[in-house]
Amino acid sequence: METVMVNASSAYPVHIGGGLLDRCGGLLAAVTSSRRCAVVTDSTVGPLYAGRVRASLEEAGFTPLLYSFPAGEQNKNLTIYGSILEFFAQNRLTRSDCIVALGGGVVGDMAGFAAATYQRGVDYIQMPTTFLAASDSSVGGKTAVDLAAGKNLAGAFWQPKMVLCDTDTFRTLPADTFADGAAETVKHALIKDRDFLGFLMTADVHQSIAQVVRRNVEIKAAVVGEDEFERGARKLLNFGHTLGHAIEKCSGYGVTHGHAVGIGMALACRAAERLGYSPAGTLDAVLAANGRFGLPVQCPYGADELYNAATGDKKRDGGSIDVVVLEEIGRAKTVRLDMDGLRAFTEAAL
Amino acid sequence: METVMVNASSAYPVHIGGGLLDRCGGLLAAVTSSRRCAVVTDSTVGPLYAGRVRASLEEAGFTPLLYSFPAGEQNKNLTIYGSILEFFAQNRLTRSDCIVALGGGVVGDMAGFAAATYQRGVDYIQMPTTFLAASDSSVGGKTAVDLAAGKNLAGAFWQPKMVLCDTDTFRTLPADTFADGAAETVKHALIKDRDFLGFLMTADVHQSIAQVVRRNVEIKAAVVGEDEFERGARKLLNFGHTLGHAIEKCSGYGVTHGHAVGIGMALACRAAERLGYSPAGTLDAVLAANGRFGLPVQCPYGADELYNAATGDKKRDGGSIDVVVLEEIGRAKTVRLDMDGLRAFTEAAL
Repeated sequence: METVMVNASSAYPVHIGGGLLDRCGGLLAAVTSSRRCAVVTDSTVGPLYAGRVRASLEEAGFTPLLYSFPAGEQNKNLTIYGSILEFFAQNRLTRSDCIVALGGGVVGDMAGFAAATYQRGVDYIQMPTTFLAASDSSVGGKTAVDLAAGKNLAGAFWQPKMVLCDTDTFRTLPADTFADGAAETVKHALIKDRDFLGFLMTADVHQSIAQVVRRNVEIKAAVVGEDEFERGARKLLNFGHTLGHAIEKCSGYGVTHGHAVGIGMALACRAAERLGYSPAGTLDAVLAANGRFGLPVQCPYGADELYNAATGDKKRDGGSIDVVVLEEIGRAKTVRLDMDGLRAFTEAAL
Repeated sequence: METVMVNASSAYPVHIGGGLLDRCGGLLAAVTSSRRCAVVTDSTVGPLYAGRVRASLEEAGFTPLLYSFPAGEQNKNLTIYGSILEFFAQNRLTRSDCIVALGGGVVGDMAGFAAATYQRGVDYIQMPTTFLAASDSSVGGKTAVDLAAGKNLAGAFWQPKMVLCDTDTFRTLPADTFADGAAETVKHALIKDRDFLGFLMTADVHQSIAQVVRRNVEIKAAVVGEDEFERGARKLLNFGHTLGHAIEKCSGYGVTHGHAVGIGMALACRAAERLGYSPAGTLDAVLAANGRFGLPVQCPYGADELYNAATGDKKRDGGSIDVVVLEEIGRAKTVRLDMDGLRAFTEAAL
């Protein structure tokens, strides 16, 4: 087991390694004094892992409750969120009890938001079961649900007490779902660590998965430690996301987040090279990385569609938008564009 | 206009005085750089004051949106909360825009929770229009909605950027609604300020309303500054609330919060005197104060009913509960009771 510390408004450990599901009870006992907890999971992950998690929790003296909701981003909504809260209340969970989010990004985002707001905030831990959630959303305390008007529009910053990444759980992931995690991994390398990109382009990522997750978490933890509430440096993590979100939206969310970010990074680099923000070669590096991890690079939408979808993005801030570009491989910056600037950026991206 | 500063995780002013609704635009312009805002109000307060608020905001250069929901505690739920968030999103409110909560406690709690969670938190100001909200809930950053399982079970700590108490708005309050504010005022005096109780027992509160609200806010601000997240000292503000909440619950919320707290303070003092926590005379002081402000002192429920309702209280914490008692008039402490202790306390209260 490897451990990375996140130093945000509260400090907490991220444990990474194989076999951690079966040790979760003992690890949770180290960060909470309560012995009551509620495990929130979904209909995909629950049947695979909830039994082992429950057994480990009981062995450590916990009395775990279990709440499972139907898997899928379409269920990351206020209705299911409300059902989770009512479940906590009906079972008389108190402020000193603990929530366990067992699953991918949807489970982590929604269980985290429920923990952030139940009785104005209770402790929770993240147990991500996808490469994407382990490498990205489980660390940093962003919690959310979707509104009808858009993704992640309701939420809170609420740091977990611990993150527990059992890398064995990634073995059951379909190739496309694994690729979603690879997209955020490539992103971390492109914005912060040229050597890590070199490693990713040559190593066997499946064989080195704990090491890869660890480096992802180190990069993300450093950014979150510097800017927990996304006022500045944390925006760099949105590399590839402005046009990526637009692609997700245009596809009616048929294109997954990781795949959309993959395309979004390629588009951002093409535009940035053409507009002089990035040196030649950054686009080629993204295309090569996407190719290696089975991520797409072609955008099926035109400039009009992308621009309209992007201007509805929640990151729009009083008529301007921050777009992330690479100054070189391993170093990124934000560029503030007005709406005309974003229009030009989008056209240059295609 | 008088101003009290609250020094919580963020510092903000509470402005108190007559005629402030018509000055809200200029005052808001001093605490936000955005000129877009959404005024959230209800069907009682909106027709009375939204026009004046809108006019002042527009005069100061704002483009205000208005969202009104049906008045009443039964509407402080996740459905209306979701509608408020969708309204913000449909109107493309951004992280840098501002929410204005115009109304009593229900509006403040729910608009505050919407502000706390829209895009993971946007600025908001409180414009309380009841004596109760001005003296209590608008200050300190507690936001909430009710669940089916109980009141205020979902929420967040989220401090406003400013609180604006126009004391002229209290003139239209029915006597019973004014008495609700008096209950929390008496509570503040009983737990923190013997001289303030003396003032309340002799002065014309209506004539001295700005002074009374000011002292309320000073007391609350001091407590919140010491313990924003209710881990210790802030619990003293729950004086009269353990049995008060039980009375509200037993009545199906037919007894208002202030009236229930009035009875709850009397019950707590009777029990505390009998059990030796409080000196003789505290009960008499509460009975006199309640009488002066038209608050009830008789509990219509028996010990069994109260106990069962109280143990479902969210403040129950792993089998024990903190009850607030007066060490003397103007000084309070918490006593931790197990369930048997609470049972005995409830019986001694009647």
